[in-house]
Amino acid sequence: MTESHGPSAQPLTRQIARQLAQIDRDFDRHVCEVQRFIRQPSVSADDWGIQEMALLLADKIRSLGAECSIVETDKHPIVYGRLDTGADKTIVFYELYDVQPARESGWIVPPFDAEVVDLPGHGPSIVGRGAANSKGCVVGFLNTLEAIQRSGHKVPVNVIFVVEGEEEIGSPSLPGFIREHAAELKSAECFYQPYFGENASGTTIVYLGIKGMACLELTCEGGDWGGPRERDVHAMHSAWIGSPAWRLVQALATMKRMKDASEVTVIPDFARSVRTPTPEEAGLLSELEESFDEAVVLREQGGAKCFKWAGLSGVELLKKYLYEPSLNLNGIASGYSSAGTILPRQARARLDIRLVPDMEPNQVVDAVRKHLCDQGYPDIKVDVLQAYPPSQSSLDQRPVDALVRSVRELAPGPVRVWPRSAGVAPHYLFTKELGVPMACGGLGHGSKSHSANEYITVEGLRRHERGICGFLYAL
Amino acid sequence: MTESHGPSAQPLTRQIARQLAQIDRDFDRHVCEVQRFIRQPSVSADDWGIQEMALLLADKIRSLGAECSIVETDKHPIVYGRLDTGADKTIVFYELYDVQPARESGWIVPPFDAEVVDLPGHGPSIVGRGAANSKGCVVGFLNTLEAIQRSGHKVPVNVIFVVEGEEEIGSPSLPGFIREHAAELKSAECFYQPYFGENASGTTIVYLGIKGMACLELTCEGGDWGGPRERDVHAMHSAWIGSPAWRLVQALATMKRMKDASEVTVIPDFARSVRTPTPEEAGLLSELEESFDEAVVLREQGGAKCFKWAGLSGVELLKKYLYEPSLNLNGIASGYSSAGTILPRQARARLDIRLVPDMEPNQVVDAVRKHLCDQGYPDIKVDVLQAYPPSQSSLDQRPVDALVRSVRELAPGPVRVWPRSAGVAPHYLFTKELGVPMACGGLGHGSKSHSANEYITVEGLRRHERGICGFLYAL
Repeated sequence: MTESHGPSAQPLTRQIARQLAQIDRDFDRHVCEVQRFIRQPSVSADDWGIQEMALLLADKIRSLGAECSIVETDKHPIVYGRLDTGADKTIVFYELYDVQPARESGWIVPPFDAEVVDLPGHGPSIVGRGAANSKGCVVGFLNTLEAIQRSGHKVPVNVIFVVEGEEEIGSPSLPGFIREHAAELKSAECFYQPYFGENASGTTIVYLGIKGMACLELTCEGGDWGGPRERDVHAMHSAWIGSPAWRLVQALATMKRMKDASEVTVIPDFARSVRTPTPEEAGLLSELEESFDEAVVLREQGGAKCFKWAGLSGVELLKKYLYEPSLNLNGIASGYSSAGTILPRQARARLDIRLVPDMEPNQVVDAVRKHLCDQGYPDIKVDVLQAYPPSQSSLDQRPVDALVRSVRELAPGPVRVWPRSAGVAPHYLFTKELGVPMACGGLGHGSKSHSANEYITVEGLRRHERGICGFLYAL
Repeated sequence: MTESHGPSAQPLTRQIARQLAQIDRDFDRHVCEVQRFIRQPSVSADDWGIQEMALLLADKIRSLGAECSIVETDKHPIVYGRLDTGADKTIVFYELYDVQPARESGWIVPPFDAEVVDLPGHGPSIVGRGAANSKGCVVGFLNTLEAIQRSGHKVPVNVIFVVEGEEEIGSPSLPGFIREHAAELKSAECFYQPYFGENASGTTIVYLGIKGMACLELTCEGGDWGGPRERDVHAMHSAWIGSPAWRLVQALATMKRMKDASEVTVIPDFARSVRTPTPEEAGLLSELEESFDEAVVLREQGGAKCFKWAGLSGVELLKKYLYEPSLNLNGIASGYSSAGTILPRQARARLDIRLVPDMEPNQVVDAVRKHLCDQGYPDIKVDVLQAYPPSQSSLDQRPVDALVRSVRELAPGPVRVWPRSAGVAPHYLFTKELGVPMACGGLGHGSKSHSANEYITVEGLRRHERGICGFLYAL
């Protein structure tokens, strides 16, 4: 059976018409289910509602006829299930059931009330912590499987569920879990992580890869070089006692060569293993250039007046953004920022390094450490808070191709495929360690993850579920 | 009447024997008075108890037969009084009635209970916020005047009282007050501010001068150069949007040339008008060298291992400490220090510059501003939080000589005269603007100003009062 004669020769919407109709019939209940899951707080940082959420989720997975267990870890359990439908393909559904805290001000409705609010410009929307990141995705996926079953079909793939409760605190248990279950997980066609891929203007974006990261904390304290070792001292002693704050500032300054906004990282070997775009990626970048609007990016990034490199635009700018590692000064703190005059005994900075293929985090961390030593700061402590490599998929991987095809057919507007996102995620566990492709993305609009008034539109949830259904049948 | 035949030819202790005896007789009540004043909180930063304290103080001053008024300012009133004793000399007693907050942990007794506690190594001591800084001094002075009167004498000088309630918040109203009352204040023999001048090992230190300061806040935000202008943005955008935090770090780094602990300020014109020690000062420095112990300084300054300049010791080290301006990075803050990954829209640093004669704060501030412009950072905002010049007295000024002579005669142990302290105070208002010498210092031991368990020893209060009495008669 060649592709042109098989069911896939039909448009997806015809193949899955009954399933989509069932989604529509059940949709009011689907919205209520998303609300029910948001109303159960599951804040991993505060250990709030985690157990209750894991139980709720396992019950919902079991209601599909799947096996499901709650696997304890050192911190928060992983909900691990298996729906065997007798299909010849298996996917791993990877998602998170934990959410960020919701302490920020500005919520128009209580963050765990999950109210439907008519948002100007967006229409009726579910507003609540976790709506977009990622309870809408988790419950949307389970709703979709249920609708497929209720439409009289078997889910067209076997599904292994891996839903963790530590993503918002850095996924400390996930690597161990993945490695422990590698034999089973490796046999999957792909790892699948849907999200709300439509932006506010209706364009759907699919990212083929994601950056890696090395998040470092640098600490400078008094020591053999000088500086107070035991406590802050009165500012008057800065006249003769060395300052850890000045020392850290000087050490940081050696890492960049700057002119206006242009920051060139000058740490030797920092970008040693960076590769250039593949022909496929170069093609995607060229396609992006048509729709890429520098002014919109600047407006959305806090109204910045220009990019780091004067005169750079289009593909060259996108290449800098996506194909060079960045070294961000995520935070710096020493002494008092508002009152008091002291010579602080300690200064701290947090560096957020974003890695592109084919960089390895260890190599970058070593480069930073060696640079500090070479510049005369061997005493500055470098703690690695988080570190993992980037991951990259390609359109010639069958699940990635299926995702892009299904999105193109079901999207309400234009679709843009970016070679990668500038965000970070530990997808390397799947793509690199197991060698299984990762298909990430989907339809629907939601936004403000990690911010007040996180939301998904009600119609966006419906499209999100339609997109999931389409992907499962396109695979 | 030459000096050799007058009453000053007698030892001070003989001249004031009856007054000192009266202090002893009344001393239990004196201790209670200090406790009463500490028990009335007067935290200027929190506007707590200020009015009550001003009334208490004015009543106590009036009880000596003085006129006294409470002069309102934009913030906290100045207690302004005059005791006319018909003497031919007039002094201005300058002090503060406000205190720092007492929020720090570690108090062994409640900070406004003013309990007498037997402190190991110090003996019975009044522990409470403001004990040393400066209610012990204010009430000790008033106690002493009262004891002189009760001993049957007239206070040997007329006293103008200027006691402010804003010292701990930077004395914003004091310059205006001093200028407004310049005609009256100028006629004074000296401004007098006693403090507890004995250190823990029983040496009494008198400082002849004090440094000035320029406290600057540097702010770097997104602007024409780049960087987000309206809000923090996601850290992933640091790949193409400029960073105010990196920019501030780079700008700060241009201000110093460093090697290990040695920080050389390289701002042109920064130290332009610094003068070298006068012969008197050079002599005092040489005298200090005998008793100056580098190891003790390092141990007391947070256990630092070395000074900024390897190999420097003795007079050369003291000259660096007292005769060069310092540029301290009092604080720096941007972004998150503990969690979150953002590209912060703003970065701030606080510089505490300590000025030595004959520096003018405006000139230093201009030098910093010009340096930032010349280095390519014209956008970095420089706010002056506080700025005033240093002030310097000399032993050949009569009131200073009287202070040192009286301290030498009444001190329980060795006396060291330092040409100046590395601390700061707006004494220039008196010494420079009015041309009236400032006599600062006294006997008694107290410590931990601005810290938990601030204290004065009970016997220290007695010596403090004896010293005040001695100074008034030595003048």
